[in-house]
Amino acid sequence: MPSYDDIRRVRESDWVNNFWKVLAHDPKTMRRTWESVKEVMAPGALAPLVKEMIYVAVSATNNCDYCIASHTAAARAKGMTDAMLGELMAVVGMANETNRLATGYRIPVDPEFEPKN
Amino acid sequence: MPSYDDIRRVRESDWVNNFWKVLAHDPKTMRRTWESVKEVMAPGALAPLVKEMIYVAVSATNNCDYCIASHTAAARAKGMTDAMLGELMAVVGMANETNRLATGYRIPVDPEFEPKN
Amino acid sequence: MPSYDDIRRVRESDWVNNFWKVLAHDPKTMRRTWESVKEVMAPGALAPLVKEMIYVAVSATNNCDYCIASHTAAARAKGMTDAMLGELMAVVGMANETNRLATGYRIPVDPEFEPKN
Amino acid sequence: MPSYDDIRRVRESDWVNNFWKVLAHDPKTMRRTWESVKEVMAPGALAPLVKEMIYVAVSATNNCDYCIASHTAAARAKGMTDAMLGELMAVVGMANETNRLATGYRIPVDPEFEPKN
Amino acid sequence: MPSYDDIRRVRESDWVNNFWKVLAHDPKTMRRTWESVKEVMAPGALAPLVKEMIYVAVSATNNCDYCIASHTAAARAKGMTDAMLGELMAVVGMANETNRLATGYRIPVDPEFEPKN
Amino acid sequence: MPSYDDIRRVRESDWVNNFWKVLAHDPKTMRRTWESVKEVMAPGALAPLVKEMIYVAVSATNNCDYCIASHTAAARAKGMTDAMLGELMAVVGMANETNRLATGYRIPVDPEFEPKN
Repeated sequence: MPSYDDIRRVRESDWVNNFWKVLAHDPKTMRRTWESVKEVMAPGALAPLVKEMIYVAVSATNNCDYCIASHTAAARAKGMTDAMLGELMAVVGMANETNRLATGYRIPVDPEFEPKN
Repeated sequence: MPSYDDIRRVRESDWVNNFWKVLAHDPKTMRRTWESVKEVMAPGALAPLVKEMIYVAVSATNNCDYCIASHTAAARAKGMTDAMLGELMAVVGMANETNRLATGYRIPVDPEFEPKN
Repeated sequence: MPSYDDIRRVRESDWVNNFWKVLAHDPKTMRRTWESVKEVMAPGALAPLVKEMIYVAVSATNNCDYCIASHTAAARAKGMTDAMLGELMAVVGMANETNRLATGYRIPVDPEFEPKN
Repeated sequence: MPSYDDIRRVRESDWVNNFWKVLAHDPKTMRRTWESVKEVMAPGALAPLVKEMIYVAVSATNNCDYCIASHTAAARAKGMTDAMLGELMAVVGMANETNRLATGYRIPVDPEFEPKN
Repeated sequence: MPSYDDIRRVRESDWVNNFWKVLAHDPKTMRRTWESVKEVMAPGALAPLVKEMIYVAVSATNNCDYCIASHTAAARAKGMTDAMLGELMAVVGMANETNRLATGYRIPVDPEFEPKN
Repeated sequence: MPSYDDIRRVRESDWVNNFWKVLAHDPKTMRRTWESVKEVMAPGALAPLVKEMIYVAVSATNNCDYCIASHTAAARAKGMTDAMLGELMAVVGMANETNRLATGYRIPVDPEFEPKN
């Protein structure tokens, strides 16, 4: 399958993780997802490590165990230290707490935060 | 209220947004939340802008409109460009998609991703 | 519609809120939901006020604005004070924070917490 | 327990899965839940297989592993093929992605989508 | 922008809704999302109307107001009747309820539901 | 570590569960989280058992297995009976169901539920 070869080429490794092995049963979703992930996670205005940490933050909030495990590993491979992981998790925890306070108290958005036209 | 004065001092502004005005009705939660946010969002192993973008990512995933509005504004004030916001949202969207694929297909975590002892 | 009359009878009020007015377009779901809510929210091992506060906690976590508004009003009508609401929200916020820390760090359940057989 | 006998009768099988075995410890919730599920999942304007696939879609989005496993099995028993499962998961993934984009960018609902009166 | 023209062509309409107007500020995400949605929502093993109803089910579970409004309108345009919408919402509600019961009681997956090898 | 000693003192037990053992790798988050949990869960306008049940309700809704296990155990230690657990779970299930109905049907908040000024 062309996507498999491309995964190996981009990652410079022969190993393919379970996510892609399972998706491979549906070649259309496999191809589309791989091409999309490759585009989205490429270096750009944000550094690849920042992107991986955002991925971990979303995955922790959604409680996706597979994704937490795989993207934490990917972030470490890209240089995330224990101190960075600690701060990442602290922000994720705090954001989840204040999200629910703002929602539970039905706090109206300040006009100052609305986009200007 | 001491927290109010501290908010103004740290932010170098007299303006206080609705979130803190509402919390002020419960001084204990106000004080604890402000002290916690101040500690968590301080510069450390991660830059303040990266922390704000992680806050936006969690808030978008949790669908907290107030928090998306306020932390997007805070991230812009710390230097987030349109290009950075676009990539942030692209990662958030992609992470939410693959989170559900990994969960929906019940994909087992690869042993390679488990912590070594 | 029999459910409407029963809502008015149980609540001792002629007023019917939008939730039931909208459900009334689907009489089967209306009847089933009303009968279920009536059974679940009846006094039992837990006091009705405790049940309403649990309803608010779930609604804040799920970000259901309609449900937060209506069940906060119902809890107040049953005696919830400002101090009780403040503590309810504080617990909801804290639980959401530690939920994500436990999930994000992939913390294994202690054997002591597993049910004994 | 009457619900147990009814589960066996409706399903034409002696086997009862863990969900109902656990609920059986609370006969009131057991009876109410079984009667509700039986009513909701019965053939109607939507085919039973479509209902099962909607159940899987919600369960994947909520990350309920038990429900994903049991309702995917039920959908297969009602005729869901590998190709249908692949498309179901692709839609679930895509919806989760665009849900967060629409939320994260705070996109206002077009008047054209609002109900006419 | 080529995606705009393609949206108009595929939908046989000059009108473009806010979702795409906002995404258009990030042409890369615009193009990738449009191509992905077009592939995922195309007729296949599942009928387009079934796909739209799955989209609504996910959006209601995620509480994405924009997506509920737009995909309910799209489902109606593809033939969803009031009776079908009523059953769709009934299944979504029931699934959300039993998802939390299965999770809250920590019910183990029956071996019968595990995939055979 | 001072927090460890305080956990043992407050709980009158030498045993420390995995949550705190893992957080201990990040002393700042450990200290802040422990002090916050201690403040939030202390007896006040709400009884400690009610607070634990609210914690379980949030954890079940968020699908945090660790938190469901640990806070269900804590609630039992504070006097939660099987009947109370059954009613707690019934309310959690029902709230999740009606949350999605209210959201999915986009039901507007009645003016009667809005706060008076």
